Amino acid sequence: MTEQSQHSKDREQTSGVDVNVDALALLFDALDKNDAGAGAAALADLHAADAADVIEQLPSDQLKQLAKTIPSVFSGEVLSELSDDLLEDVVEDLDAKTVADAIGELESDDAVQVVEDLDDDFRAEVLDEVDPKSRVALEHSLSFNEDSVGRLMQREFIALPKFFTAKQAVNAIREMPKEQLPEIFYEIYVVDPSYRPIGKIALSALLRAENQVKLKDLMTDLQVLVTQETDKEDAAYLFEKYDLPSSPVTDDFGRLVGMLTMDDMVEVMQDEHTEDLLALAGVSEAGVGDRVLDVVLGRAPWLLVNLATAILASMVISIFEGSMEKVIALAVLMPIVASMGGNAATQGLTVTVRALAMREITAVNARRIIWRETLAGFVHGLLFAIIMAIIVLIWFQSLTLAMVIASAMVVNHIVAGSAGVLVPLGLKRLNADPAVASSVFVTTVTDVVGFFVFLGLAALVLSN
Amino acid sequence: MTEQSQHSKDREQTSGVDVNVDALALLFDALDKNDAGAGAAALADLHAADAADVIEQLPSDQLKQLAKTIPSVFSGEVLSELSDDLLEDVVEDLDAKTVADAIGELESDDAVQVVEDLDDDFRAEVLDEVDPKSRVALEHSLSFNEDSVGRLMQREFIALPKFFTAKQAVNAIREMPKEQLPEIFYEIYVVDPSYRPIGKIALSALLRAENQVKLKDLMTDLQVLVTQETDKEDAAYLFEKYDLPSSPVTDDFGRLVGMLTMDDMVEVMQDEHTEDLLALAGVSEAGVGDRVLDVVLGRAPWLLVNLATAILASMVISIFEGSMEKVIALAVLMPIVASMGGNAATQGLTVTVRALAMREITAVNARRIIWRETLAGFVHGLLFAIIMAIIVLIWFQSLTLAMVIASAMVVNHIVAGSAGVLVPLGLKRLNADPAVASSVFVTTVTDVVGFFVFLGLAALVLSN
Repeated sequence: MTEQSQHSKDREQTSGVDVNVDALALLFDALDKNDAGAGAAALADLHAADAADVIEQLPSDQLKQLAKTIPSVFSGEVLSELSDDLLEDVVEDLDAKTVADAIGELESDDAVQVVEDLDDDFRAEVLDEVDPKSRVALEHSLSFNEDSVGRLMQREFIALPKFFTAKQAVNAIREMPKEQLPEIFYEIYVVDPSYRPIGKIALSALLRAENQVKLKDLMTDLQVLVTQETDKEDAAYLFEKYDLPSSPVTDDFGRLVGMLTMDDMVEVMQDEHTEDLLALAGVSEAGVGDRVLDVVLGRAPWLLVNLATAILASMVISIFEGSMEKVIALAVLMPIVASMGGNAATQGLTVTVRALAMREITAVNARRIIWRETLAGFVHGLLFAIIMAIIVLIWFQSLTLAMVIASAMVVNHIVAGSAGVLVPLGLKRLNADPAVASSVFVTTVTDVVGFFVFLGLAALVLSN
Repeated sequence: MTEQSQHSKDREQTSGVDVNVDALALLFDALDKNDAGAGAAALADLHAADAADVIEQLPSDQLKQLAKTIPSVFSGEVLSELSDDLLEDVVEDLDAKTVADAIGELESDDAVQVVEDLDDDFRAEVLDEVDPKSRVALEHSLSFNEDSVGRLMQREFIALPKFFTAKQAVNAIREMPKEQLPEIFYEIYVVDPSYRPIGKIALSALLRAENQVKLKDLMTDLQVLVTQETDKEDAAYLFEKYDLPSSPVTDDFGRLVGMLTMDDMVEVMQDEHTEDLLALAGVSEAGVGDRVLDVVLGRAPWLLVNLATAILASMVISIFEGSMEKVIALAVLMPIVASMGGNAATQGLTVTVRALAMREITAVNARRIIWRETLAGFVHGLLFAIIMAIIVLIWFQSLTLAMVIASAMVVNHIVAGSAGVLVPLGLKRLNADPAVASSVFVTTVTDVVGFFVFLGLAALVLSN
């Protein structure tokens, strides 16, 4: 960022990749001294996104204090930039009037984002304070499923008939009253007489068009049609795939009712990534402002499940207490079999979950991928079985033990390979999230199989 | 998608969330029969993004066959939509002239994406076939670090002086020759006399502006300044944070040299997510078209590292062979201590890696987060120690064993909590990728500590 500083010192202080640490320090200080003026001043000159970033750094006690003592920092823009979990916390400590006023500044899509996270009673209070027209629009948006496009779209867009000329279109846009106009738009939509979108025109194309060209000759294909009921993650995927800057949204009758824009879709993508990543690790929710209690509660459920599966694995081990007492090396070596299987399975699982998220696995290639993963498991199993057999031969000077661990590793790697791909595909087929619970499930399988096969084989060989 | 089918049957067949399975089946069939005409026809009516999706489903043998027998399907647009790993494979089997022609259809940023993945010799051949002007531009782009914005920007953009009126600006845009103009643009940039960007104007604002308004009165703040050397992930983060549709790119002297657009940044974000997710699971590279050998080689390195760490853990266990022989229950219970620690550490690690990717951890809050994670580890440790102590009391009727496992679990959870946050933060501070290697490192720590503390405590107690 050295080049920037040469001609834009001011800007450098207010925006950038990293959180504005100076503003954060000032805010901390102000909250410490209970100085509302200084607190407001710390955030005053920041872009809303930067102010939200700073606020997100606060631990929840200070966040509460900020909401109670300096509610004015929570403008509509700042609220809409806050992460969802933080928003819930903050808004509880603001009064309904403050929230309603903040929402009033926002476009319809951003307003819904703020309102949807409120608890029911408080939401009703806030809606009472909002002007009647916006209230009806908000209530309509809220009537859609929270994962649907209906929640995310804005009701401001530009739709013109196909027989308009470019000149007429530009004039129509110029004369449109400001409150009907989207704050920013990249495309206009061309509609048929029953208000169904039939094409789109990039503003860059409209701007360059000859005055007399008809919109129907300027418009391009819509590529995709998104309805109010479309899943938001599907919509985000379509935006990414077709590089869309915006998309019209239709109702059940195909009539144009709203517009989605890329910036909202990017947020959906980010949320999806975070969900997948956390789900794979068994974390239900996480935010940087979480307290210890949030952390403990957000992760305890999966740790409890893991405790149960670990005990299950121990019960498998205890079946073979007799063998282990005879050959203590079994106890020494058994974690290796389980650990290798668990890791291999997690690798395959992660690749599969990612491929599912990217819509890369289809009915046509699923069988090939299952077969590929199973075969790769077999090859990994062979490879590491050979290495491990040599190590065991040197370490324990027992060919029997070497053969036992090698066989167990081959079996467990095959199981790991197929479980890593079958579990997420199975969950997907059951319409469950392929990332949730699959880690625990898959590693339970590899632990149990690993211990059982290794100790079981040893028991068989030893009893002869 | 039922609503769509009512008025757009054709479109439904050519685009959507899922891969076009019909086209894929036709393509498979055509390749099977070695029928080039049918193969080309299978993809002919598809959007480039859909054609690329279909092609990405092919296993690598068929992909090779496609490249050799029907090179015409690899238009510039299709090539630029293919994933990077696939692109490398495909291009090897095309000849330089085909690739050069395909590139000729593309804008400068997309052309670079294709060329940068070629190996050096073949790239030189391709560049020889490209027209001299494009070649110079491509070579200049390639001179930038592959992670920098210089690689991703396009050289087509619109820059106008601040004293222009809106009318003059629109006329200038209309009269610009097509080859200088970006295919699509959402904003124009305002430059000072030394060609430094000083503001931007959304096309929607320009379109609505009065004819005589000066650009300097229309323009808004740039929010961020991106240079050719800016890291592409930093740029993507800025696009997301400030909801930017595009951004000017400057050289070292602050002069406007290019433009970044949102669609390229979305791709950077997706790549970053995939990298983080795969790195956390210890997978170096993965694509849906990978062969068994790719899978084996892409995952073997981390499995090998895991084997080494598992052996290390076994060596720790073997120190306590004597204690285990006396009390075989130790062997039965020890995996529980290690497994719980490993899972808790992975949870904390994943949350930390995600927070780092979202730029949420700063110098100001790092200490609080380290403390929070350690404390949460302690609470989890206490909680599960109590549960486990009760279970061991019932199972083995030994208060000593119950106390030993409870103490070991508390210690290992504290270690897990702090390791989960300290390891990625440490890697970040060393300018390494916090996701790579941290999983293996963290679980090694919890395995070794888990076994050592549990068995060590047991040995101490048993020797008394």
